[in-house]
Amino acid sequence: MHTFWGSVDGTLLRLDPEEIPHALKVLRLQPGDALHVLDGSGNRYTGTVARAHKKEVIAELQETHYDFGAVSGHLHLAIAPTKNVDRMHFFLEKAVEMGIHEITPLVSFHSERRHWNAERAVRVMKAACTQSHKGKLPVLHPLQSLEDLIKQTDATRIQACMATCLEAPKESWVEILKAQPERPALLCIGPEGDFSLAEWEHAQQAGFQHVHLGAHRLRTETAGLYAVAAFAQRGL
Amino acid sequence: MHTFWGSVDGTLLRLDPEEIPHALKVLRLQPGDALHVLDGSGNRYTGTVARAHKKEVIAELQETHYDFGAVSGHLHLAIAPTKNVDRMHFFLEKAVEMGIHEITPLVSFHSERRHWNAERAVRVMKAACTQSHKGKLPVLHPLQSLEDLIKQTDATRIQACMATCLEAPKESWVEILKAQPERPALLCIGPEGDFSLAEWEHAQQAGFQHVHLGAHRLRTETAGLYAVAAFAQRGL
Repeated sequence: MHTFWGSVDGTLLRLDPEEIPHALKVLRLQPGDALHVLDGSGNRYTGTVARAHKKEVIAELQETHYDFGAVSGHLHLAIAPTKNVDRMHFFLEKAVEMGIHEITPLVSFHSERRHWNAERAVRVMKAACTQSHKGKLPVLHPLQSLEDLIKQTDATRIQACMATCLEAPKESWVEILKAQPERPALLCIGPEGDFSLAEWEHAQQAGFQHVHLGAHRLRTETAGLYAVAAFAQRGL
Repeated sequence: MHTFWGSVDGTLLRLDPEEIPHALKVLRLQPGDALHVLDGSGNRYTGTVARAHKKEVIAELQETHYDFGAVSGHLHLAIAPTKNVDRMHFFLEKAVEMGIHEITPLVSFHSERRHWNAERAVRVMKAACTQSHKGKLPVLHPLQSLEDLIKQTDATRIQACMATCLEAPKESWVEILKAQPERPALLCIGPEGDFSLAEWEHAQQAGFQHVHLGAHRLRTETAGLYAVAAFAQRGL
């Protein structure tokens, strides 16, 4: 049974307009066909197509699977988008598959990219949800400055961390997650060129912890993948 | 100081021909300039350019850094190349950055891709070595059938594992690595469509262990990344 993005209105399921061409022309969806619908809220809806028209595809809701593919815990990654946007999209796709809850594209002192097409990013994330069977679309915040992110972070409530290559005492991100697997975590990953010393000092004053991601020298998006994999594996 | 791929001949360093245009036209390398050379053997050589000509760039060897960026342990991943080769190249790049030692592109029953451009893959891996400061180029085997791989594997000597979504008792890949972090490990990851039951049974008879990669449903290349990250984090 195919899965589409759409919305729920009472007992009706409505496919998103951008899903319709694929549903009708490639998959040849017809009245009577069964389908799944995700709306990003965490549930997966099952229904039967009632109307298949190029302007709208509507199905009758038959069953709701709550918390479909829910991923335990809460990981928020704030990451500086790379110059090459494909690398970022690949990262997003993998992060959603392995389980992430919240993402903030970050602008910091050495940032190479200060523009960000959120719509394209959401499309990548939706496809990854369908692929990896997850009903909940991770939160994607608008592009934000590190300064604003630090201001908004309450480091008494969440495990706030910053990964840098700067020379200063650090703890292992893997160890931190293992020590408190259920605590919500935020990790900031900087651009090529790293966070500046001033940025780290600012974060430190706000209660952020200085972390390392192992002995390897990782690109921005590889660091992101490493961090998400560690989160997925923290309780194992 | 810039790092190039090349070869060592006594006390001379010779840049690989494909490095020359970039070295001369972009980086404007000239006699007297210092450089690093990697030859994939594990060492990093430092030298001074003696001759910079469009047909050859030669430097005098001054210093050898042995086991440059060596990654502990031994991970061999046998993975079915994806239809979209970009996904595979991205995987290779990340696997090298996070630390992998041996890769076998695998052909199995449901394989989508039965051709493989090894030269392009090596270029990607070399660039990842330079980027992540690793002197040793991981071994890339030619495309191989699962059957041949199983035949060549001595499961008494290495931790031989196969990841599938089949219904059969499984152990956690993460747990296996943590239990014996120093034991060389081989993990087979199948194509979209998974390994067949017959393939798993064949591997099982040869002493392979059946493993899972967590609760998530992962694409082939995401499974590869998850597995490499777990290896990098196994001793932490």
